[in-house]
Amino acid sequence: MQISELARRAGVPVATVKYYLREGLVPAGELTGATRARYGEEHLERLRLVRALLGPGGLSIARARAVLAAVDTPGTSVHGALGAAHRALPGVGSEGPADLEQARAVLRRQGWRVAEDSPALVALAAALEALRAAGAAPTDELLDRYADAAGRIGEQDVAAVPTGSVAEAVRFVVVSTVLLEPVLLALRRLAQEDASRRRFPDGC
Amino acid sequence: MQISELARRAGVPVATVKYYLREGLVPAGELTGATRARYGEEHLERLRLVRALLGPGGLSIARARAVLAAVDTPGTSVHGALGAAHRALPGVGSEGPADLEQARAVLRRQGWRVAEDSPALVALAAALEALRAAGAAPTDELLDRYADAAGRIGEQDVAAVPTGSVAEAVRFVVVSTVLLEPVLLALRRLAQEDASRRRFPDGC
Repeated sequence: MQISELARRAGVPVATVKYYLREGLVPAGELTGATRARYGEEHLERLRLVRALLGPGGLSIARARAVLAAVDTPGTSVHGALGAAHRALPGVGSEGPADLEQARAVLRRQGWRVAEDSPALVALAAALEALRAAGAAPTDELLDRYADAAGRIGEQDVAAVPTGSVAEAVRFVVVSTVLLEPVLLALRRLAQEDASRRRFPDGC
Repeated sequence: MQISELARRAGVPVATVKYYLREGLVPAGELTGATRARYGEEHLERLRLVRALLGPGGLSIARARAVLAAVDTPGTSVHGALGAAHRALPGVGSEGPADLEQARAVLRRQGWRVAEDSPALVALAAALEALRAAGAAPTDELLDRYADAAGRIGEQDVAAVPTGSVAEAVRFVVVSTVLLEPVLLALRRLAQEDASRRRFPDGC
């Protein structure tokens, strides 16, 4: 297909496609003339992945390029490519030096194995520190219940990852990791509102 | 106690306490001289609530004042005061006009009853719209599983609310609603990492 059709099918202006080509985010098409090139389905898939990384993923061009490099490295496993995407995504909370022990203990009790330098592990430790600083240190029991619920969700998220291609899997993970976060938080607040209404009826 | 002891016990500089007094966030103490006043435990509790609203809660002085007004209104139920706090907290996602129907349908299937104008309902609808726009519209089944997990968490959050006083309950809700959000999101990402490792072993 020509660049105009590629752009149309991806729902992106032609000028944007040209920008991605110049930045090397989308590989060049097959030259069919001095100023014309032909593009295939793999270009369309790549374009959709780039849109997911830069749009919902909120990545800079540089970070998107790092994820694409992992996707393109021959021999990268799906888990490896998903990990590269996960790492590039904006964090889930303030980060910084934190005591990882309580966070690691939750993982041990759940039997979860994650990378030693997983950004989410640091984010969890920082979030626990903020709770302690606010005089609301969570108990292990509360953390385990949160982890149980998060475990069910994470299990289902990963089961839903399509396996057609690494690019498709990465796009799915970027979009669903980031865009389902506000869904989960909104549902928690709605559940709290309903539970509060039941626990504290009017006049109590 | 004198203002110096009040400040020390709350872990706040005296100048900050004076600022809250001037802003009317903490009620005046009982005058014991031309420039001296005596404060009680209720002042300490109030000061801790103000710190929670302005710190972890991230509220402006004006929004904190609105929550305190609800807490102070005679006859306000705990549920009413918690609702005022919830409403004042920063949102859980982008907000704006959105089609509420899919969001309302999730609540109906869960049997949750919330206020028609609950900010979390609008936030949920906006988050669903962002997913649809990214070509990743969630199925009802996925939403129901997320809602099941959120329901368990919300139930437990509300069961943990202390009932000593409305101020104490509101402080707890503000701190735990806001500061447990990054905990939940980090745990979800860690669960995804563990599930991905199991689903996609090296070389797959």
